[in-house]
Amino acid sequence: MATLKDVAKEAGLTTSTVSRVLNNRGYISDNARKKVGDAMKKLDYYPNEVARSLHGKSTNTIGLIVPHIRHPYFAETISNLEDQAYKKGYKILLFNSQSVHEKAVEYVNTCVGNRVAGIILCSGSVPMEVFEGIGVPIITMERFLENGTASVECDNKQGGAMAAEKLISCGCRHLLYIGNVNSVSMPADLRAEGFRDICEKRKVFYKEFSTEELQYNDMRYDELLDNILKKYPETDGVFASSDFIGAQILQTCRKLGIRVPEDMKIVGFDDVNLASLTTPQLTTIHQPIKEMAETAVRLLDDSVAGKMVPRRTVLPVRLVERGTA
Amino acid sequence: MATLKDVAKEAGLTTSTVSRVLNNRGYISDNARKKVGDAMKKLDYYPNEVARSLHGKSTNTIGLIVPHIRHPYFAETISNLEDQAYKKGYKILLFNSQSVHEKAVEYVNTCVGNRVAGIILCSGSVPMEVFEGIGVPIITMERFLENGTASVECDNKQGGAMAAEKLISCGCRHLLYIGNVNSVSMPADLRAEGFRDICEKRKVFYKEFSTEELQYNDMRYDELLDNILKKYPETDGVFASSDFIGAQILQTCRKLGIRVPEDMKIVGFDDVNLASLTTPQLTTIHQPIKEMAETAVRLLDDSVAGKMVPRRTVLPVRLVERGTA
Repeated sequence: MATLKDVAKEAGLTTSTVSRVLNNRGYISDNARKKVGDAMKKLDYYPNEVARSLHGKSTNTIGLIVPHIRHPYFAETISNLEDQAYKKGYKILLFNSQSVHEKAVEYVNTCVGNRVAGIILCSGSVPMEVFEGIGVPIITMERFLENGTASVECDNKQGGAMAAEKLISCGCRHLLYIGNVNSVSMPADLRAEGFRDICEKRKVFYKEFSTEELQYNDMRYDELLDNILKKYPETDGVFASSDFIGAQILQTCRKLGIRVPEDMKIVGFDDVNLASLTTPQLTTIHQPIKEMAETAVRLLDDSVAGKMVPRRTVLPVRLVERGTA
Repeated sequence: MATLKDVAKEAGLTTSTVSRVLNNRGYISDNARKKVGDAMKKLDYYPNEVARSLHGKSTNTIGLIVPHIRHPYFAETISNLEDQAYKKGYKILLFNSQSVHEKAVEYVNTCVGNRVAGIILCSGSVPMEVFEGIGVPIITMERFLENGTASVECDNKQGGAMAAEKLISCGCRHLLYIGNVNSVSMPADLRAEGFRDICEKRKVFYKEFSTEELQYNDMRYDELLDNILKKYPETDGVFASSDFIGAQILQTCRKLGIRVPEDMKIVGFDDVNLASLTTPQLTTIHQPIKEMAETAVRLLDDSVAGKMVPRRTVLPVRLVERGTA
């Protein structure tokens, strides 16, 4: 079997340049990359990363644990994380915890067993103690973990406040907030807090609802939304904690003959593709998913290198006005 | 550091039972699983899967290469594959080729270097020769690879025929097909073929359009669709090769003042969540994504075990009638 040295000789480059290409680190010219690729192909050389990682102790793999893949917000997040990881020479091991406690715990163990360089955690269902003493950097995205890990969040509280301000400025006086329930405290809870603060300050009636775990996992909210809107027929504005819920509210309104935006205004959260594909298009709070993914991978890379990373990074959100408010 | 033997002793089980739990293979009682988990936790034992895979040659990891993560069809596919992989004790290494030839080639090399058990390929941008002699089973989903790999597809031709039949039975006489361009031949091309056959048989006017690679990668079709619908104002029915394109056609119709379904009928493809969140909801061809994912992982598992697998598996589709046709 060919060795790294053989590849270097064939490519007419130094072994350290070949190594840089293989590890995708530091400056590499397109020309060098091509030469190494051609030489590898010619010699049928595949670097055994499994063996390499045994020596180097950890692999250049990131364990990514999400509660959902199909949900547009997580699909967008995973896509951006994969993109950023690729740029820094990392691979993604993807795990879908589906809010199942046991599955999440098992996944963390699998990550450690596979000697990942670090874990990016987007799932709220992993209890803190699982991470104790695993010796692997953890970055959370939109999740709290009260044991010294680094978190990347968007400004959820500000987003909730912006949504309430927008609905009230449109003339709404009977507001609803519909968020996802979680057994643990989550940054997204701050959306409700920001919303509540403004409603109280402006003395506008509001009610808060949570979807249930099962509904969150199945992504089916229609029955719940139907019940809520029938129980509160005076509602004239809804703030949904995701565009996905916002889009389902639009469907429920159509079914109940409630006109949007005439009789009902809606503000979503996330600003994923879906927000531009509903009729009317969703007014929403833009979450800077790309920048959050970029930050998460950068912080993980810094952690691996032993650098100090901020305990919490909160990125700004903004209101995107479309057709529902 | 604790060993497998220590864990077995602590759990009061045989080492082979512990090994079965760790490998997630064969029958394992919930009780045994719990005992092993508790013992591992108590002893701080993490099986070094990197070392294990050195001995066992390949890991229980599947390399999954997709051209898109954000696209609802691929998000749904990835989610189902992760689910099925978990059930069979595999992990997913996720790669987003974004239709970039070089990236896809690099990813295949990374998969081989990481000693994956097999590769599931959903990307059309990987040239055949990359797979020659890599010695790893490959299963393709909705992709052709003419070198003896096993493919899992839905009945694209039948789907295209169903869409044409539906539009014609609704009274449409000026049809359009809008599909994604691909530099290589893809199973999805058969959707156009099935559609074309019916139009010709029924003597109904039709035109075929392809989106460009850039539009596919950016998921922005608005300008293209705007141009097409303006150029063919007599169009009264469109078959879109994905619900995502179908949803964008709805937006374009709204912008141009074309009423759906009164003046224009639309049939999509895939039947992802999005199809139920547009107004009106999309009539579409249901692709059995869950069953396709199940089949792909089963075939990969069979290939790893040295069993013979079918060269091609084609699963049926069905028409789902909603509001656009």
